[in-house]
Amino acid sequence: MTQYSIGVDLGGTNLRAATVDQDGKILAQVSASTSPEKGRDHVIGELVDCIQELRSKQTEGRFAGVGIGVPGFILIDKGIIVGSNNLAFLEGFALRDDIERRLGAPVILENDANAAALGESWIGAGADVDDLVLLTLGTGIGGGIIYNNRVMHGREGMAGELGHITVVPNGNPCGCGNVGCLEKHASATAITCTAELMKVTNHPNPTAEDIYKLAVAGDWKAQQIFRSMGEALGVALATLINTFNFPLYLLSGGPLPAWDYFAPAMMDEVKRRSFTFRNTKTRIEKAKLGGQAGLYGAAYLPFQAQKDRP
Amino acid sequence: MTQYSIGVDLGGTNLRAATVDQDGKILAQVSASTSPEKGRDHVIGELVDCIQELRSKQTEGRFAGVGIGVPGFILIDKGIIVGSNNLAFLEGFALRDDIERRLGAPVILENDANAAALGESWIGAGADVDDLVLLTLGTGIGGGIIYNNRVMHGREGMAGELGHITVVPNGNPCGCGNVGCLEKHASATAITCTAELMKVTNHPNPTAEDIYKLAVAGDWKAQQIFRSMGEALGVALATLINTFNFPLYLLSGGPLPAWDYFAPAMMDEVKRRSFTFRNTKTRIEKAKLGGQAGLYGAAYLPFQAQKDRP
Repeated sequence: MTQYSIGVDLGGTNLRAATVDQDGKILAQVSASTSPEKGRDHVIGELVDCIQELRSKQTEGRFAGVGIGVPGFILIDKGIIVGSNNLAFLEGFALRDDIERRLGAPVILENDANAAALGESWIGAGADVDDLVLLTLGTGIGGGIIYNNRVMHGREGMAGELGHITVVPNGNPCGCGNVGCLEKHASATAITCTAELMKVTNHPNPTAEDIYKLAVAGDWKAQQIFRSMGEALGVALATLINTFNFPLYLLSGGPLPAWDYFAPAMMDEVKRRSFTFRNTKTRIEKAKLGGQAGLYGAAYLPFQAQKDRP
Repeated sequence: MTQYSIGVDLGGTNLRAATVDQDGKILAQVSASTSPEKGRDHVIGELVDCIQELRSKQTEGRFAGVGIGVPGFILIDKGIIVGSNNLAFLEGFALRDDIERRLGAPVILENDANAAALGESWIGAGADVDDLVLLTLGTGIGGGIIYNNRVMHGREGMAGELGHITVVPNGNPCGCGNVGCLEKHASATAITCTAELMKVTNHPNPTAEDIYKLAVAGDWKAQQIFRSMGEALGVALATLINTFNFPLYLLSGGPLPAWDYFAPAMMDEVKRRSFTFRNTKTRIEKAKLGGQAGLYGAAYLPFQAQKDRP
């Protein structure tokens, strides 16, 4: 092994970090709780300790740097997080530069969904293509666009906010100010809230998995929720396919096990709404790396940055 | 002047060709009717004659090659047109190779909306940015996506089919198989057909300009048509802005003079549906090159291809 990097997945409650080699093999992994209540300095200290621990264990190979995936927008040029509900205490702080100073090593910040898309592109479901779109179905819906094997950032780093594509012009209101955003009709949260709206179950706070189990058991309301979710995904995917003509569109996240319940409606919409889909070999598939995608993508960032240097 | 190229805009009824220098100055221009009824060989012969005529006139500078903008999809690798309603007689024919053989010079084919977007990016409304999206409002709505100063093609060359973004999930049926496509709610044709549907005027076959004049004269139905068109454009633009986070989105085509009648509704939708728009310096503007944009973009293609050669 000639080189290794350290990838970090920094969430609102947990952080995970892994030493990864150039072939995408995880050599060591640690995790810690984020404890935002202890303040910014504590969280960054914890993060830096995890990275230092991994570095001290790694005796072989050259250290390429650190990649960190975080929820929220990244002002890419500045290495600053803005608009992260889960990491509000990092808002506007020069996070990248602070971590670089503490570590004495190069650090790259990336949006978590972008990092996951890059991970899938590197060694996951998209390893055989150069261009793909990933939708991460969770509390919200994140998006990552990979073009020529790189994250598309847009000018401020806000490209790929695909959870906020309008799929129902007069649909459910969204915290972003819009109504009918994809994530208000097809996220895990959309599934559980619609289930409450429809009184699908008497259980308090049902999870998307609970609704899935009801669908499997034959509950028609639960099945209808997944059909509706599939339709919303289909409208968004057709738009993305007509826009990009990429070979691959990936879905990941908690609701994936319910694929057989939402995918038929999703594919019906895609076929109807995209002649590009009907006339090309466009694949819509499950992502492969699960919850590790962001960690792999983050770890790949320092390797990719190295290729760019003259 | 060190170099020149020849750009061609090949339409269903007319073709225009121009000699253009590296600064985007038109040195000479010719046009001819396309006469599809005389057959493929005749049309290609006419096209090649126009190009030869321009070449023979040009005594100074090195000839960089020919770029041709055509309606329809281009299988970019093969230089073949598919799915062009206006040039059905060229369907599936190895057009690029045939013209190259007749001319003995390099030829690049490009979709007409992509060529127009590239023209605006080169010396038009987008000369100051690297990334933009252009929507051409005509019989249908074409789209061109410029990223890092280049056309985004997607795998088969079908990227940028932005007229077929779904903006009204249960809207007007489209020839593409979808319902509620942007072009069925915001093209010049959508304006005139909606006017007929609403019995805005007794004139047979009103044009978009006629409806515009009625709006200016205070006709509330005509004004409502442009508001509705603006809303449809706004939904599509918000989706594009959330997807790309590009600095610039351009509109061109016949309905542009009605800007004051459709833009307010369009901007209201964009503001509501895109927090990226509200939080960044994103511009939505009129394109500058009018009907010449495609000609400029086509002429730029040989210059751009030259930069790629090692």
